[in-house]
Amino acid sequence: MEKRRIDPVNCSVARSLAVVGERWSLLIVREALDGARRFQDFHFRLGIARNLLTTRLDSLVAAGVMHRVPYRDPGSRQRFAYELTEQGQALRPALVALLEWGDRYLADPEGPSVIVRHGTDGDENPCDEPVTVVLECAAGHSHLAPQDIKRTPGPGARFTDAS
Amino acid sequence: MEKRRIDPVNCSVARSLAVVGERWSLLIVREALDGARRFQDFHFRLGIARNLLTTRLDSLVAAGVMHRVPYRDPGSRQRFAYELTEQGQALRPALVALLEWGDRYLADPEGPSVIVRHGTDGDENPCDEPVTVVLECAAGHSHLAPQDIKRTPGPGARFTDAS
Repeated sequence: MEKRRIDPVNCSVARSLAVVGERWSLLIVREALDGARRFQDFHFRLGIARNLLTTRLDSLVAAGVMHRVPYRDPGSRQRFAYELTEQGQALRPALVALLEWGDRYLADPEGPSVIVRHGTDGDENPCDEPVTVVLECAAGHSHLAPQDIKRTPGPGARFTDAS
Repeated sequence: MEKRRIDPVNCSVARSLAVVGERWSLLIVREALDGARRFQDFHFRLGIARNLLTTRLDSLVAAGVMHRVPYRDPGSRQRFAYELTEQGQALRPALVALLEWGDRYLADPEGPSVIVRHGTDGDENPCDEPVTVVLECAAGHSHLAPQDIKRTPGPGARFTDAS
Protein backbone atom coordinates (compact mmCIF):
# COMPACT_ATOMS: atom_id res chain seq x y z
CA MET A 1 0.00 0.00 0.00
CA GLU A 2 1.50 3.30 -1.11
CA LYS A 3 -1.45 5.51 -0.31
CA ARG A 4 -0.70 8.72 1.52
CA ARG A 5 -2.43 8.80 4.87
CA ILE A 6 -3.75 11.78 6.77
CA ASP A 7 -1.82 11.98 10.01
CA PRO A 8 -4.46 11.24 12.66
CA VAL A 9 -2.77 13.30 15.35
CA ASN A 10 -4.38 16.66 14.56
CA CYS A 11 -7.75 15.20 13.58
CA SER A 12 -10.66 17.00 15.19
CA VAL A 13 -12.16 13.73 16.38
CA ALA A 14 -9.11 13.20 18.58
CA ARG A 15 -9.30 16.77 19.85
CA SER A 16 -13.00 16.45 20.59
CA LEU A 17 -12.41 13.25 22.50
CA ALA A 18 -9.63 14.92 24.49
CA VAL A 19 -12.31 17.30 25.76
CA VAL A 20 -15.39 15.07 26.03
CA GLY A 21 -14.16 11.57 25.18
CA GLU A 22 -14.89 10.08 28.47
CA ARG A 23 -18.10 8.68 29.80
CA TRP A 24 -18.77 11.18 32.57
CA SER A 25 -18.07 14.32 30.58
CA LEU A 26 -20.63 13.51 27.91
CA LEU A 27 -23.15 12.37 30.53
CA ILE A 28 -22.71 15.69 32.35
CA VAL A 29 -23.40 17.49 29.06
CA ARG A 30 -26.45 15.27 28.50
CA GLU A 31 -27.86 16.19 31.93
CA ALA A 32 -27.12 19.86 31.32
CA LEU A 33 -29.04 19.69 28.03
CA ASP A 34 -31.87 18.16 30.07
CA GLY A 35 -31.88 21.07 32.52
CA ALA A 36 -29.40 20.18 35.25
CA ARG A 37 -27.58 23.29 36.50
CA ARG A 38 -26.44 22.83 40.08
CA PHE A 39 -23.70 20.60 41.43
CA GLN A 40 -26.33 18.66 43.38
CA ASP A 41 -28.39 18.10 40.20
CA PHE A 42 -25.49 16.40 38.46
CA HIS A 43 -24.46 14.53 41.59
CA PHE A 44 -27.97 13.24 42.20
CA ARG A 45 -28.87 12.40 38.62
CA LEU A 46 -25.63 10.68 37.68
CA GLY A 47 -24.62 9.12 40.99
CA ILE A 48 -21.09 10.30 40.29
CA ALA A 49 -18.63 10.75 43.18
CA ARG A 50 -18.36 14.36 44.29
CA ASN A 51 -14.61 14.70 43.77
CA LEU A 52 -14.86 13.19 40.28
CA LEU A 53 -17.77 15.48 39.43
CA THR A 54 -15.77 18.51 40.61
CA THR A 55 -12.86 17.52 38.38
CA ARG A 56 -15.06 16.94 35.34
CA LEU A 57 -16.98 20.19 35.76
CA ASP A 58 -13.70 22.10 36.12
CA SER A 59 -12.41 20.48 32.91
CA LEU A 60 -15.59 21.29 31.02
CA VAL A 61 -15.40 24.91 32.18
CA ALA A 62 -11.70 25.13 31.25
CA ALA A 63 -12.51 23.72 27.80
CA GLY A 64 -15.25 26.27 27.20
CA VAL A 65 -18.08 23.72 27.18
CA MET A 66 -19.70 25.04 30.36
CA HIS A 67 -19.54 28.26 32.32
CA ARG A 68 -20.23 29.12 35.95
CA VAL A 69 -23.22 31.26 36.91
CA PRO A 70 -23.43 32.58 40.49
CA TYR A 71 -26.57 32.03 42.52
CA ARG A 72 -27.50 32.43 46.17
CA ASP A 73 -30.25 30.57 48.01
CA PRO A 74 -31.88 32.46 50.94
CA GLY A 75 -29.63 32.22 53.98
CA SER A 76 -26.82 30.52 52.08
CA ARG A 77 -23.51 31.72 50.74
CA GLN A 78 -23.09 32.37 47.04
CA ARG A 79 -22.64 29.24 44.96
CA PHE A 80 -22.14 28.53 41.26
CA ALA A 81 -24.39 26.73 38.83
CA TYR A 82 -23.11 25.29 35.58
CA GLU A 83 -24.61 26.11 32.21
CA LEU A 84 -23.65 25.02 28.74
CA THR A 85 -21.97 27.59 26.54
CA GLU A 86 -22.91 27.77 22.87
CA GLN A 87 -19.94 25.41 22.31
CA GLY A 88 -21.46 22.99 24.80
CA GLN A 89 -24.93 23.15 23.28
CA ALA A 90 -23.34 22.34 19.94
CA LEU A 91 -22.59 18.85 21.28
CA ARG A 92 -26.28 18.00 20.92
CA PRO A 93 -25.98 16.36 17.46
CA ALA A 94 -23.17 14.10 18.71
CA LEU A 95 -25.30 13.08 21.70
CA VAL A 96 -28.35 12.46 19.51
CA ALA A 97 -26.18 10.29 17.25
CA LEU A 98 -24.93 8.28 20.26
CA LEU A 99 -28.49 7.98 21.57
CA GLU A 100 -29.69 6.65 18.23
CA TRP A 101 -26.88 4.15 18.06
CA GLY A 102 -27.58 2.94 21.59
CA ASP A 103 -31.31 2.73 20.86
CA ARG A 104 -30.68 0.60 17.83
CA TYR A 105 -28.17 -1.83 19.34
CA LEU A 106 -28.32 -1.64 23.13
CA ALA A 107 -31.82 -0.68 24.27
CA ASP A 108 -34.03 -2.78 26.53
CA PRO A 109 -36.65 -5.00 24.85
CA GLU A 110 -39.42 -2.58 25.87
CA GLY A 111 -37.75 0.12 23.79
CA PRO A 112 -35.72 3.26 24.34
CA SER A 113 -36.05 5.26 27.55
CA VAL A 114 -35.74 8.59 25.79
CA ILE A 115 -37.17 9.85 22.52
CA VAL A 116 -35.83 13.12 21.17
CA ARG A 117 -38.60 15.17 19.61
CA HIS A 118 -38.92 18.35 17.59
CA GLY A 119 -40.09 21.20 19.80
CA THR A 120 -39.30 22.98 23.03
CA ASP A 121 -41.12 22.68 26.36
CA GLY A 122 -42.76 26.09 25.97
CA ASP A 123 -44.10 25.56 22.44
CA GLU A 124 -47.80 26.21 21.90
CA ASN A 125 -47.99 24.04 18.81
CA PRO A 126 -45.07 21.67 19.10
CA CYS A 127 -44.29 19.41 16.16
CA ASP A 128 -43.33 16.59 18.54
CA GLU A 129 -42.10 14.25 15.80
CA PRO A 130 -39.03 12.14 16.66
CA VAL A 131 -35.69 13.62 15.66
CA THR A 132 -32.88 11.68 14.01
CA VAL A 133 -29.41 12.50 12.83
CA VAL A 134 -28.95 12.56 9.07
CA LEU A 135 -25.79 12.74 6.97
CA GLU A 136 -26.17 15.34 4.24
CA CYS A 137 -23.76 16.80 1.69
CA ALA A 138 -23.47 20.41 0.55
CA ALA A 139 -25.01 19.48 -2.83
CA GLY A 140 -28.20 18.58 -0.98
CA HIS A 141 -27.92 14.79 -1.11
CA SER A 142 -29.43 13.70 2.18
CA HIS A 143 -29.82 10.51 4.22
CA LEU A 144 -26.40 9.31 3.08
CA ALA A 145 -25.44 5.82 4.24
CA PRO A 146 -22.32 5.52 6.44
CA GLN A 147 -20.49 3.78 3.59
CA ASP A 148 -21.31 6.54 1.09
CA ILE A 149 -18.91 9.00 2.63
CA LYS A 150 -15.13 9.18 2.71
CA ARG A 151 -12.43 11.03 4.62
CA THR A 152 -10.29 13.41 2.56
CA PRO A 153 -7.44 15.75 3.57
CA GLY A 154 -8.44 19.23 4.69
CA PRO A 155 -6.31 22.42 4.70
CA GLY A 156 -4.78 21.49 8.07
CA ALA A 157 -3.82 17.95 7.05
CA ARG A 158 -0.36 16.55 7.76
CA PHE A 159 0.71 13.37 6.06
CA THR A 160 2.43 10.15 6.99
CA ASP A 161 3.36 7.19 4.78
CA ALA A 162 0.71 4.52 4.79
CA SER A 163 1.51 1.49 6.87
CA MET B 1 -39.72 21.66 40.91
CA GLU B 2 -42.26 18.86 40.69
CA LYS B 3 -41.47 17.73 37.18
CA ARG B 4 -41.10 14.00 36.65
CA ARG B 5 -37.66 13.14 35.40
CA ILE B 6 -36.62 10.29 33.12
CA ASP B 7 -34.27 8.09 35.11
CA PRO B 8 -30.95 8.49 33.30
CA VAL B 9 -29.71 5.02 34.22
CA ASN B 10 -31.14 3.13 31.26
CA CYS B 11 -30.64 5.94 28.74
CA SER B 12 -29.05 4.75 25.51
CA VAL B 13 -26.44 7.49 25.67
CA ALA B 14 -25.09 5.94 28.87
CA ARG B 15 -25.14 2.48 27.30
CA SER B 16 -23.39 3.70 24.19
CA LEU B 17 -20.72 5.38 26.26
CA ALA B 18 -20.23 2.18 28.27
CA VAL B 19 -19.22 0.57 24.95
CA VAL B 20 -17.39 3.39 23.16
CA GLY B 21 -17.27 6.26 25.66
CA GLU B 22 -13.59 6.37 25.99
CA ARG B 23 -11.06 8.06 23.83
CA TRP B 24 -9.27 5.04 22.42
CA SER B 25 -12.34 3.02 21.50
CA LEU B 26 -13.78 5.74 19.27
CA LEU B 27 -10.36 6.46 17.76
CA ILE B 28 -9.99 2.75 16.93
CA VAL B 29 -13.39 2.87 15.22
CA ARG B 30 -12.32 6.02 13.36
CA GLU B 31 -9.19 4.30 12.05
CA ALA B 32 -11.20 1.22 11.08
CA LEU B 33 -13.59 3.44 9.10
CA ASP B 34 -10.47 4.83 7.40
CA GLY B 35 -9.27 1.36 6.39
CA ALA B 36 -7.16 0.09 9.29
CA ARG B 37 -7.60 -3.68 9.75
CA ARG B 38 -4.54 -5.21 11.32
CA PHE B 39 -3.27 -4.88 14.87
CA GLN B 40 -0.14 -3.17 13.52
CA ASP B 41 -2.24 -0.63 11.58
CA PHE B 42 -3.99 0.51 14.75
CA HIS B 43 -0.80 0.40 16.79
CA PHE B 44 1.13 2.45 14.23
CA ARG B 45 -1.58 4.97 13.42
CA LEU B 46 -2.66 5.68 16.98
CA GLY B 47 0.58 5.20 18.87
CA ILE B 48 -1.39 3.30 21.48
CA ALA B 49 0.39 0.85 23.79
CA ARG B 50 0.05 -2.75 22.61
CA ASN B 51 -1.54 -4.09 25.80
CA LEU B 52 -4.07 -1.26 25.86
CA LEU B 53 -4.87 -1.82 22.18
CA THR B 54 -5.39 -5.53 22.81
CA THR B 55 -7.81 -4.77 25.63
CA ARG B 56 -9.76 -2.23 23.60
CA LEU B 57 -10.01 -4.45 20.50
CA ASP B 58 -11.20 -7.34 22.69
CA SER B 59 -13.87 -5.09 24.22
CA LEU B 60 -15.02 -3.85 20.82
CA VAL B 61 -15.28 -7.45 19.58
CA ALA B 62 -17.16 -8.51 22.71
CA ALA B 63 -19.57 -5.59 22.25
CA GLY B 64 -20.26 -6.51 18.62
CA VAL B 65 -18.66 -3.38 17.19
CA MET B 66 -15.82 -5.27 15.47
CA HIS B 67 -15.23 -8.85 14.44
CA ARG B 68 -12.09 -10.88 13.83
CA VAL B 69 -11.18 -12.02 10.32
CA PRO B 70 -8.36 -14.59 9.93
CA TYR B 71 -5.50 -13.90 7.53
CA ARG B 72 -2.11 -15.46 6.91
CA ASP B 73 0.92 -13.73 5.41
CA PRO B 74 3.33 -15.98 3.46
CA GLY B 75 5.56 -17.86 5.91
CA SER B 76 3.67 -16.61 8.96
CA ARG B 77 1.16 -18.17 11.27
CA GLN B 78 -2.49 -17.30 10.99
CA ARG B 79 -3.40 -13.95 12.51
CA PHE B 80 -6.60 -11.98 12.88
CA ALA B 81 -7.55 -8.67 11.38
CA TYR B 82 -10.32 -6.50 12.82
CA GLU B 83 -13.23 -5.25 10.78
CA LEU B 84 -16.24 -3.19 11.77
CA THR B 85 -19.54 -4.99 11.96
CA GLU B 86 -22.67 -3.26 10.68
CA GLN B 87 -23.12 -2.10 14.29
CA GLY B 88 -19.63 -0.60 14.20
CA GLN B 89 -20.16 1.14 10.87
CA ALA B 90 -23.30 2.67 12.30
CA LEU B 91 -21.07 4.76 14.59
CA ARG B 92 -20.14 6.91 11.60
CA PRO B 93 -22.74 9.64 12.21
CA ALA B 94 -21.58 10.03 15.82
CA LEU B 95 -17.97 10.35 14.64
CA VAL B 96 -18.91 12.86 11.94
CA ALA B 97 -20.76 14.87 14.59
CA LEU B 98 -17.69 14.85 16.88
CA LEU B 99 -15.46 15.79 13.93
CA GLU B 100 -17.69 18.72 13.07
CA TRP B 101 -17.72 19.90 16.66
CA GLY B 102 -13.94 19.68 16.89
CA ASP B 103 -13.55 21.46 13.54
CA ARG B 104 -15.71 24.30 14.74
CA TYR B 105 -14.16 24.81 18.17
CA LEU B 106 -10.78 23.09 18.33
CA ALA B 107 -9.18 23.01 14.87
CA ASP B 108 -5.83 24.59 14.00
CA PRO B 109 -5.91 28.08 12.42
CA GLU B 110 -5.10 26.59 9.00
CA GLY B 111 -8.32 24.61 9.14
CA PRO B 112 -9.47 21.04 9.70
CA SER B 113 -7.17 18.14 8.87
CA VAL B 114 -10.00 15.99 7.56
CA ILE B 115 -13.00 16.82 5.41
CA VAL B 116 -15.69 14.18 5.09
CA ARG B 117 -17.08 14.10 1.57
CA HIS B 118 -19.91 12.41 -0.28
CA GLY B 119 -18.60 9.49 -2.34
CA THR B 120 -16.51 6.36 -2.05
CA ASP B 121 -12.94 5.85 -3.22
CA GLY B 122 -14.04 3.74 -6.20
CA ASP B 123 -16.68 6.16 -7.53
CA GLU B 124 -16.39 7.14 -11.19
CA ASN B 125 -18.39 10.33 -10.73
CA PRO B 126 -18.08 11.16 -7.07
CA CYS B 127 -20.16 14.01 -5.69
CA ASP B 128 -17.28 15.04 -3.40
CA GLU B 129 -19.25 17.72 -1.57
CA PRO B 130 -18.55 18.05 2.18
CA VAL B 131 -20.84 16.06 4.45
CA THR B 132 -22.39 17.40 7.64
CA VAL B 133 -24.66 16.00 10.29
CA VAL B 134 -28.17 17.40 10.31
CA LEU B 135 -30.96 17.04 12.86
CA GLU B 136 -34.23 16.16 11.15
CA CYS B 137 -37.65 15.18 12.46
CA ALA B 138 -40.02 12.56 11.09
CA ALA B 139 -42.31 15.31 9.75
CA GLY B 140 -39.49 16.38 7.44
CA HIS B 141 -38.37 19.49 9.29
CA SER B 142 -34.64 19.53 8.71
CA HIS B 143 -31.59 21.48 9.92
CA LEU B 144 -33.09 21.79 13.39
CA ALA B 145 -31.10 23.87 15.85
CA PRO B 146 -29.83 22.11 19.01
CA GLN B 147 -32.26 24.15 21.11
CA ASP B 148 -35.26 23.17 18.93
CA ILE B 149 -35.36 19.63 20.23
CA LYS B 150 -36.35 18.14 23.56
CA ARG B 151 -36.01 14.84 25.39
CA THR B 152 -39.26 12.99 26.11
CA PRO B 153 -39.90 9.62 27.79
CA GLY B 154 -39.86 6.57 25.54
CA PRO B 155 -41.53 3.17 26.10
CA GLY B 156 -38.57 1.96 28.21
CA ALA B 157 -38.51 5.04 30.48
CA ARG B 158 -38.31 4.72 34.25
CA PHE B 159 -39.00 7.73 36.40
CA THR B 160 -37.53 9.43 39.42
CA ASP B 161 -38.72 12.49 41.28
CA ALA B 162 -37.10 15.65 40.07
CA SER B 163 -34.40 17.05 42.28
